[in-house]
Amino acid sequence: MSNYLSMNNQQLMAEKEKLVKEYEAFKAKNLKLDMSRGKPGTEQLDISEKMLDIISSETECKTRDGLDCRNYGLLDGIPSMRELFAQMLEVDANEVLVGGNSSLNMMFDTISCMMTAGIGGCTPWVKQDKIKFLCPVPGYDRHFGITEYFGIEMINVPMTATGPDMDVVEGLVAADDTIKGIWCVPKYSNPQGITYSDETVKRFANLKPAAKDFRIMWDNAYCVHDVTDNGEKLLSIMDECKKCGNEDLPILFCSTSKITFPGSGVAAMASSLSNMAVFKKRYTYQTIGYDKINMLRHMKFFKNLDGVLSHMEKHKAILKPRFEAVLTHLDNELTDKGIASWKKPNGGYFVSVDVMDGCADKVVALCKEAGVVLTGAGATFPYGNDPKNSNIRIAPSFPPVDELNVAMDLFCLCVKLAAVEKLLK
Amino acid sequence: MSNYLSMNNQQLMAEKEKLVKEYEAFKAKNLKLDMSRGKPGTEQLDISEKMLDIISSETECKTRDGLDCRNYGLLDGIPSMRELFAQMLEVDANEVLVGGNSSLNMMFDTISCMMTAGIGGCTPWVKQDKIKFLCPVPGYDRHFGITEYFGIEMINVPMTATGPDMDVVEGLVAADDTIKGIWCVPKYSNPQGITYSDETVKRFANLKPAAKDFRIMWDNAYCVHDVTDNGEKLLSIMDECKKCGNEDLPILFCSTSKITFPGSGVAAMASSLSNMAVFKKRYTYQTIGYDKINMLRHMKFFKNLDGVLSHMEKHKAILKPRFEAVLTHLDNELTDKGIASWKKPNGGYFVSVDVMDGCADKVVALCKEAGVVLTGAGATFPYGNDPKNSNIRIAPSFPPVDELNVAMDLFCLCVKLAAVEKLLK
Repeated sequence: MSNYLSMNNQQLMAEKEKLVKEYEAFKAKNLKLDMSRGKPGTEQLDISEKMLDIISSETECKTRDGLDCRNYGLLDGIPSMRELFAQMLEVDANEVLVGGNSSLNMMFDTISCMMTAGIGGCTPWVKQDKIKFLCPVPGYDRHFGITEYFGIEMINVPMTATGPDMDVVEGLVAADDTIKGIWCVPKYSNPQGITYSDETVKRFANLKPAAKDFRIMWDNAYCVHDVTDNGEKLLSIMDECKKCGNEDLPILFCSTSKITFPGSGVAAMASSLSNMAVFKKRYTYQTIGYDKINMLRHMKFFKNLDGVLSHMEKHKAILKPRFEAVLTHLDNELTDKGIASWKKPNGGYFVSVDVMDGCADKVVALCKEAGVVLTGAGATFPYGNDPKNSNIRIAPSFPPVDELNVAMDLFCLCVKLAAVEKLLK
Repeated sequence: MSNYLSMNNQQLMAEKEKLVKEYEAFKAKNLKLDMSRGKPGTEQLDISEKMLDIISSETECKTRDGLDCRNYGLLDGIPSMRELFAQMLEVDANEVLVGGNSSLNMMFDTISCMMTAGIGGCTPWVKQDKIKFLCPVPGYDRHFGITEYFGIEMINVPMTATGPDMDVVEGLVAADDTIKGIWCVPKYSNPQGITYSDETVKRFANLKPAAKDFRIMWDNAYCVHDVTDNGEKLLSIMDECKKCGNEDLPILFCSTSKITFPGSGVAAMASSLSNMAVFKKRYTYQTIGYDKINMLRHMKFFKNLDGVLSHMEKHKAILKPRFEAVLTHLDNELTDKGIASWKKPNGGYFVSVDVMDGCADKVVALCKEAGVVLTGAGATFPYGNDPKNSNIRIAPSFPPVDELNVAMDLFCLCVKLAAVEKLLK
């Protein structure tokens, strides 16, 4: 079938009639499928089953230095796990703090800390008149949620194929000292799956922000999360920052939520020693330490980075066919129709689809009406406001492939139906 | 031996000479003992060993409603654990949020939330000019640490045998709308082991604070933690508050840190639905949920409140001789000397000793010099400042009884030595 944009009204009417019939048939199936969140599927959780009871006696509850992990203490986390996360984040182990089960929580606490205590010797953000954050779009809704919760104004920055548009980023941060930070998912970005190019990372490291308390929130959520055999490589932001004396710029995060168990993984953050001193001062009052037995479980299960990487091969084997299912449907049904575009990601948890301007909410609503839940339209933008109303995030990980196939049939149909209806207006 | 206060100079000199000799003998022993923190001993940790691997397969990772605890979700915590904590805190289960491994962290987050988001529809505390907190003294250093970290001015309120001096509390909160809260450990208070009387609880419930955003931080850390067979009963603050329409006043906390593992327990908080709406709004941005597998471990281990209570009998059996050792030394060596006073607690983690005014730091320093670490003098007061320099907190839980006996021999000696030196000045 040809490009919708070159159809005349009659052709569009005929196409619509056909699509409506197909849609009604879908509705009759009473589907109940969910592609809304980047949630690992059951098979993925099962591959970490052995970790559940891997620590079974008190003799195993010790760090390599003999510290009893059942008891209080060790705010930084157990040394072996600091080292593992240091390798994953490409920083020094003494720059790492291992936390609880959620890197989102660590990001929230980090923003909260800069709000009330400030960073870089500057006035706490709550005491500054108005502050702003740059948000590469489309991006991760929970990042935007944190800055929105704290009343920080968010400014959209367009994503390019190599990361955020660095001309825009450089211009804005140099000109405006009320801009205090930027949210980044530098590898397999959420939702587009874009890995920042070496040049982008270097330009981040070389930023000259007007605000001394400007920080880069570098959420390396998908650092080891390939979904094809063409895994991508991200340059180390910390190494680049150190080269140009900008080591206080980045604050790095990652976790094992999508490596072991989303609800019971281990998170970590890393930053320069001078930044960490500010964050650790807060942590010292906030807690006596995070769950060290769970850290031990992870270390006994993985042993080292090689253990993590070979475990990630198992995730890849499970995720690859799911991503392929999604992309095959898009390729087969939407290529050359002029009504949708997407990128094939090599990792991460999402496929980002741009439908015709003004149609994203309609597509999501049509899918929902027929029993398939997608991430809400607009969710990938600050304030839930996608100015073009065109971006939709598809999360292929949770449903089994057969369900994905059905859901993607419906999705492609809805993209076409919404487009036809728009073109007929 | 007689009361030091009735000795003449010559008698004091003779006593001092004897004490110094004993002290030198102690120093020669090169002791290395720690009575500084309320840290459970190894025996106590061992009684929960079976919990480590009690969840061993994916089939056990489900809530009773079938939700997969390995995955994301369930911000409030698993229903069975909400119910258990509801019983421990004497509130409704829907008022409970089950958190991570640290109730201290939940208290910190709660204060942080009221700082930046406000409570009761009032202006966030950071936007109010100056705010204050009442601190019953002696009290818990980590409570005072949180309010100090956020720059909240702390006002000492004296403890009585029935809890904080309620005449002082009522007077202050009614008169001053910059007073926003009070820290309470209502059962087996830290460090004195005082359980608030029914009248005290009722007076708390009936407070008429000038500030609409005044809240009671009710840290029920030792709700099931008897150390003698004369366990005490605390009136339910929430029930009393509901009776007088004051249910927004209290915010309750507890955890299993001193029931299972200090580093890997489960914490919870509870408050009125209208307060919880404010806190949960924050939590919704802060995290997707806490470690539910660890909640399952606890529920499978305990099953219900009876399970917790019978487990606490084992802790009591371990702690009882330790507390008896401390108290026997105090009774035998310091009774009727006029230089120290203390209370025999029926629960909690500490024995609080008031030595002669001006002598606490000297006693702690003498002990330290001879190899026994105590909680720093002043730690039980806001800003580390004990105006009388007389309170010392003894933590009997961690050292074995034989070590405790040695440490307490030294402690009593140092109390006497510091007193004699003071009296000779």
